[in-house]
Amino acid sequence: MTEEKRTEIAAIGEFGLIDRLQQQITLQQESTVYGIGDDAAVIQTGELCTVVTTDLLTEGVHFDLRYVPLRHLGYKAVAVNVSDVAAMNAIPRQITVSMALSNRFSVEAVEELYAGIRLACEQYKVDLVGGDTTASGAGLTLSVTALGTAAPHELVYRNGARVGDVICVSGDLGAAYMGLQVLEREKEVFIANPNMQPQLESYEYIVGRQLKPEARMDLIHELRELGIRPTAMIDISDGLASELFHISHRSGVGIAINEDKIPVAEETGRAADEFRIDATTCALNGGEDYELLFTLDPADYERISKETDITAIGLVRKAEEGLYLITRGSNRRPLQAQGWQHFKKK
Amino acid sequence: MTEEKRTEIAAIGEFGLIDRLQQQITLQQESTVYGIGDDAAVIQTGELCTVVTTDLLTEGVHFDLRYVPLRHLGYKAVAVNVSDVAAMNAIPRQITVSMALSNRFSVEAVEELYAGIRLACEQYKVDLVGGDTTASGAGLTLSVTALGTAAPHELVYRNGARVGDVICVSGDLGAAYMGLQVLEREKEVFIANPNMQPQLESYEYIVGRQLKPEARMDLIHELRELGIRPTAMIDISDGLASELFHISHRSGVGIAINEDKIPVAEETGRAADEFRIDATTCALNGGEDYELLFTLDPADYERISKETDITAIGLVRKAEEGLYLITRGSNRRPLQAQGWQHFKKK
Repeated sequence: MTEEKRTEIAAIGEFGLIDRLQQQITLQQESTVYGIGDDAAVIQTGELCTVVTTDLLTEGVHFDLRYVPLRHLGYKAVAVNVSDVAAMNAIPRQITVSMALSNRFSVEAVEELYAGIRLACEQYKVDLVGGDTTASGAGLTLSVTALGTAAPHELVYRNGARVGDVICVSGDLGAAYMGLQVLEREKEVFIANPNMQPQLESYEYIVGRQLKPEARMDLIHELRELGIRPTAMIDISDGLASELFHISHRSGVGIAINEDKIPVAEETGRAADEFRIDATTCALNGGEDYELLFTLDPADYERISKETDITAIGLVRKAEEGLYLITRGSNRRPLQAQGWQHFKKK
Repeated sequence: MTEEKRTEIAAIGEFGLIDRLQQQITLQQESTVYGIGDDAAVIQTGELCTVVTTDLLTEGVHFDLRYVPLRHLGYKAVAVNVSDVAAMNAIPRQITVSMALSNRFSVEAVEELYAGIRLACEQYKVDLVGGDTTASGAGLTLSVTALGTAAPHELVYRNGARVGDVICVSGDLGAAYMGLQVLEREKEVFIANPNMQPQLESYEYIVGRQLKPEARMDLIHELRELGIRPTAMIDISDGLASELFHISHRSGVGIAINEDKIPVAEETGRAADEFRIDATTCALNGGEDYELLFTLDPADYERISKETDITAIGLVRKAEEGLYLITRGSNRRPLQAQGWQHFKKK
């Protein structure tokens, strides 16, 4: 550790840190098709490509066990990795799960966590093939790695969006973020008065979106059945705006999004009103929805079944136009990539 | 979390916990050749098999940053995973590295850690293809996943040892454990008097074995050149005795080890004497040597170059003979698998 200089990680942020570390990395294996920079790495050892993605979840940063049931946490840890595999247009096959546990956790608690992991494995048809179980000084840390497969021509990166493509999202946005707000509020009430029962009934949908998100493998299979391959794709973990920046940056294109087209569930809007948060801000910056953001050739968009829960929210523009939102009042507002800030500035 | 019953993890141990969790796992993917239970999982999507292994290292449990330089930690985190790939007789190709960092760590500190990771990537010719960088509530957690390849007929599992096979180890054993004792002692001295300089000169070898272990890829390549495939193999992370139990259990065989054949470096013996620890106990239960333990057909053993640092330490026997050590005094002493106990009993 150099004594001379100390730069706080918060000063450059998670993406800044990753960029910096990544600059010095060189790839030498012939089988490495794609390294850092997309939803997953791509490796080719035969006719099929293997995609690899990994997530590290730490207690107190990514989850709060005061309101997240262990079973849900296990399910979510798998789902978010499957979601990254989906975002490559690949099919998830195997996962490894590592966990570090403090002595606060009993065998029964770990079995609850595993019950959720197993449920997700069944849901997404992935095999749990390995991992590491060890002690931690404090709290719970979960590390999941997912492997998937796709033929080389099936893979979809963040860098394929072309001017004129239709920008689509699956499902609705902002729900997971509003669910988190409701859970955080109920936690405060509970801490103030432990005899209070949480009032979650009227917010079942958004709380469920936060606690038990689903990877959109259903949509990946649907697109394959229609013979449609998105030109670019990413999953929405950090918020729509942040993901749009990734696609814009990697594809070298501009982005125009229509505010009135962004899909927000009725319950999300209701909660946003109650919490006095702008619903569009939730959808743009909330994150953790694990929906898919993708771009389609206009002809392909026309072929998409009207029964799918896909919404066209804008168009890919030239790079020089930048990224902007066309507001309900028809004004252009530049997009800002807020995303999640896990490294808190002091 | 069930309120009714609480079983401490320490009561059943790490292996007990893994056994319990593993029982309920079912595999459904055609490409999953081998799941939990060996040094790595095996996946086959084409002509080559992919092996996958992962390790989670937590500060205060697996490493103490008061005497482990971050650069060494980064190197070791990669090397121990490469060692698992080697133990499958596979060639490492890619790794992912995830880390959770508290705000104690600066950008410069992370770059030090990465310098060690990059050095190991060069040493073992693996590509760093992905990972996750995030905040932690306290301390540093590192999660490394390694991918390797091998043709199906090249893979070596723990389950292939046959009666009459020669039991071999590479290098020497117990050094990493004695290195840890020296470092721990110097830490105590340092805590008592911060102006003291650590006295490590006379123990350079064993301290190096603890801080910067190497995966024995050199031996894997050598065996391949000789056209020799071990019948069973495992890397020595938990200690020779523990690994012998794994091979015995998975292969359904007995084990006879000659105490006088166990390779112990002169410096390890000297440190063991000073610390009044039995050198054989160090070699059997010390762990973290990351040497390879393997069984060979006697004819293959004869063909091994006398210049390699391989030692024949015993023979595979019938299962009913159990596992035992033939002491220097020619007595039979049953082996006990002590291994590492990360989950401390209260």
